[in-house]
Amino acid sequence: MNLENVLPMDIEKRSFEIITEELGELKLDPDKESIIKRCIHTAADFDYARTMRFSDNVVEDTLAIMKNGGFTIVTDTKMAQTGINKAALAKLNGNAVCFMSDPDVAARAKEAGSTRAAACMEKVATLQGPVIIAIGNAPTALVRLDELVKEGKIKPALVIGVPVGFVNVVQSKEIIMASGVPYIVAVGRKGGSNVAAAICNALMYKLTSEQMNRK
Amino acid sequence: MNLENVLPMDIEKRSFEIITEELGELKLDPDKESIIKRCIHTAADFDYARTMRFSDNVVEDTLAIMKNGGFTIVTDTKMAQTGINKAALAKLNGNAVCFMSDPDVAARAKEAGSTRAAACMEKVATLQGPVIIAIGNAPTALVRLDELVKEGKIKPALVIGVPVGFVNVVQSKEIIMASGVPYIVAVGRKGGSNVAAAICNALMYKLTSEQMNRK
Repeated sequence: MNLENVLPMDIEKRSFEIITEELGELKLDPDKESIIKRCIHTAADFDYARTMRFSDNVVEDTLAIMKNGGFTIVTDTKMAQTGINKAALAKLNGNAVCFMSDPDVAARAKEAGSTRAAACMEKVATLQGPVIIAIGNAPTALVRLDELVKEGKIKPALVIGVPVGFVNVVQSKEIIMASGVPYIVAVGRKGGSNVAAAICNALMYKLTSEQMNRK
Repeated sequence: MNLENVLPMDIEKRSFEIITEELGELKLDPDKESIIKRCIHTAADFDYARTMRFSDNVVEDTLAIMKNGGFTIVTDTKMAQTGINKAALAKLNGNAVCFMSDPDVAARAKEAGSTRAAACMEKVATLQGPVIIAIGNAPTALVRLDELVKEGKIKPALVIGVPVGFVNVVQSKEIIMASGVPYIVAVGRKGGSNVAAAICNALMYKLTSEQMNRK
């Protein structure tokens, strides 16, 4: 089996060409195409071509918010935070935070008998400016988020709901899609910190118009 | 669809029970079982039940090395480095590094017309003690690694070869499995920083014997 001769700078471009070829006849909404393809790319998994759900006008509305700058992306893992492209974020004057290691979060989770990820959601209310919540790991975060939204305590600009796993993951995605927030969700069990970061990056790249060689 | 009532501390345990149930009749080698299941767990993807390859005695040999401490895990992304459980690493007196953002790596990659990930591999020779190389992203790193091994410049204690993607990913895994190094590889296109970190964690957890609620 021979290596394909592709220059480093062209690897991502060639990957997306292969994805497009293999999608074949399946046509994706142009608005969402680059987001769906970046999820397929990050996991080498074509399941994302059929599992992704978008609330009405979510891409257009999110880009309008990002264009204004001053937004914060809140992740439920340090891995997802690490995977978000910092150059794109800086260019858009955005910020990415993760509260999972904060001592007050651990204390609150213990007191409430909840997960740290659920406790993190309560800190979102303290943030200034538009908030994008990107959940790639903990379904409990989405469940708590739904409660906080219903109580009027949080009004996220976007919820990226792509937790991965076997316990309450499928359910948590259905709950968040019914909660009235703008969302991008991959239904089913699949997702992950890498997929959450990929969606954040795909959105930002639509504005920075760059091929950034990072995943 | 109702939420399953599982205590935070039991979510991981319940997830592994579900994985075991769904694997059904498929019996995994007891030595490798927890590693394969943790990959399935991290991606919610049962493909890992049939794609993982292990060189002879690799689990036993790696655990012997880890037990002695002083080992270094080298990753090809900050995401994988972030995903490695730091408490387990500290308990075993190990270390995890990533050279991707080092200025000399960028300079070397530019000069050689290679990727930064490939250039990173050359820095591995400067490390003291046993080295575990965990590649979850860049096939070019595995290809360069094979060359360096053949030139006698690096002798890794273990190569975790789980890059993800569409360009030379499949080939790079075949190359590293033929290079004579101890390996754990997921053949095919799938893998990722999350999977690379999951394999490192699964190995360490065999020694620390803990359920650590992090992915």
